[in-house]
Amino acid sequence: MSVLSKPLKIALLQLSAGANKQANLSKVREYIAKAIKENSSLDLIMLPECFNSPYSVSEFPKYAENIPNGETTKFLSDIAKEYGILVIGGSYPERGQDDKIYNTSVSFNRQGEIIAKHRKAHLFDIDIPGGITFKESISLTGGDKATVFSLPDFGAIGLGICYDIRFPELAAIAARPPQNSFAMFYPGAFNTTTGPLHWHLLARARAVDNQVFVILCSPSRDITSGYHAYGHSLVVDPMGNIIAEAGEADEIVYAELDPELITKARAGIPVTIQRRFEIYDDVAKDAKISDI
Amino acid sequence: MSVLSKPLKIALLQLSAGANKQANLSKVREYIAKAIKENSSLDLIMLPECFNSPYSVSEFPKYAENIPNGETTKFLSDIAKEYGILVIGGSYPERGQDDKIYNTSVSFNRQGEIIAKHRKAHLFDIDIPGGITFKESISLTGGDKATVFSLPDFGAIGLGICYDIRFPELAAIAARPPQNSFAMFYPGAFNTTTGPLHWHLLARARAVDNQVFVILCSPSRDITSGYHAYGHSLVVDPMGNIIAEAGEADEIVYAELDPELITKARAGIPVTIQRRFEIYDDVAKDAKISDI
Repeated sequence: MSVLSKPLKIALLQLSAGANKQANLSKVREYIAKAIKENSSLDLIMLPECFNSPYSVSEFPKYAENIPNGETTKFLSDIAKEYGILVIGGSYPERGQDDKIYNTSVSFNRQGEIIAKHRKAHLFDIDIPGGITFKESISLTGGDKATVFSLPDFGAIGLGICYDIRFPELAAIAARPPQNSFAMFYPGAFNTTTGPLHWHLLARARAVDNQVFVILCSPSRDITSGYHAYGHSLVVDPMGNIIAEAGEADEIVYAELDPELITKARAGIPVTIQRRFEIYDDVAKDAKISDI
Repeated sequence: MSVLSKPLKIALLQLSAGANKQANLSKVREYIAKAIKENSSLDLIMLPECFNSPYSVSEFPKYAENIPNGETTKFLSDIAKEYGILVIGGSYPERGQDDKIYNTSVSFNRQGEIIAKHRKAHLFDIDIPGGITFKESISLTGGDKATVFSLPDFGAIGLGICYDIRFPELAAIAARPPQNSFAMFYPGAFNTTTGPLHWHLLARARAVDNQVFVILCSPSRDITSGYHAYGHSLVVDPMGNIIAEAGEADEIVYAELDPELITKARAGIPVTIQRRFEIYDDVAKDAKISDI
């Protein structure tokens, strides 16, 4: 049996977020209604990184909420329950019990219950002269766990946020035994420098190395904002083929993840059973994994 | 200081090999002379996978030689010494002391001395219906070590053979401390099914994840042979850009590996110092590495 028990129908909401949190949430609600109207058999909705706030180190603390008691978590929970749909809640700034700020993704089952919480583990601190300089660590703290969880009725998935995709370990941990995920989901806001360089490459590499689906959901590009997101929300199959991709504007991307594609990829090029753990350790063995 | 101490000038010899071993070696000698004539300041010559024999599981045992006492090893050693050049000797079938057959790569310093020997660790056993079926393990045994060695006056490099590139661990082991390699070299013969799918992707992924150069040297495509090599010998820089690439015919590819490109890549996107080894183990830590 495949690690994905049946086809999974997903929609990625590629949306930009402005300064008004209420307006951002309203826009999300509007697009979710639209997606479900366009495709009534949808199983899962995914949102982009930082969908309720500007992507800005100085703004994160102002938008940060308690999880699970803040309004955005309740908003997402209500939507999941109302539509009876799985929700991968992109990410939004969290104020932890420790008063630190995290970039956090929360996922929900069809009853609106939280099934996973991932705090971005690898903070986006980069400095490309003539390109982009950004330092999340000015206001954010990194999470200290990988995140893998069960998507009810489908199987296990792994989740990382944006810059997490540059670290192959999180995908390996999710895909390999004992986790056996069928996909890695990354809400992520690459930009107009790093996007053209590495967005497709990293998604396809994680897919092929692990023979899983890789799903990236980006904000749309708003050139009036301080951060120009790349867009190009993406669904990659286990052979590295791009099976769905957005442009740069607001857009809903639909895709169906077919279990057969995992089975075929692994039968054809059986890397998942050819690794040589007597030469190198299995990075999936002793990983720290979030238990929500 | 960069992990690469000064620019390294390399030539990749993309050549096909037929049934006649002597003719194969003569062709290699001819092309090496040509490369050095065209570029007298070359530091290093790299050959493709299986440059002295057909790429065929039934043929490997017939062409297999003792290393270091077989004729191909002596041939390469003589060339390195004669031209005072570093040689990464692609690969050729080796008959081990244990009478098993390996797909082995031998490298030489400018004095013609062996500086590394890698036995392909991950055997190419794949079965893509309508594409390609191949099973190296019918006649070959896999090596049991990763390979990293010092390229005199330049720095450390890692080496894998072809299918080894599908296993990210070998590149991570080479690139990370304590090895600190500046490049991964892969003699490799992808084919007309797997080449278009994954050749560029895998090379660029290993480069970007580790911020090292990645160099792939393929046989040229001979459609009269039983195995249609992909060609497209490739040099990728630490940002994942392709800086040199062959077509499909016999060809010499020249490239200069500039230390500044590693420094800039790592300063801009500092993943090499942002890994979170408190979440996952460092696969480079306890790896088994060849000591020749």
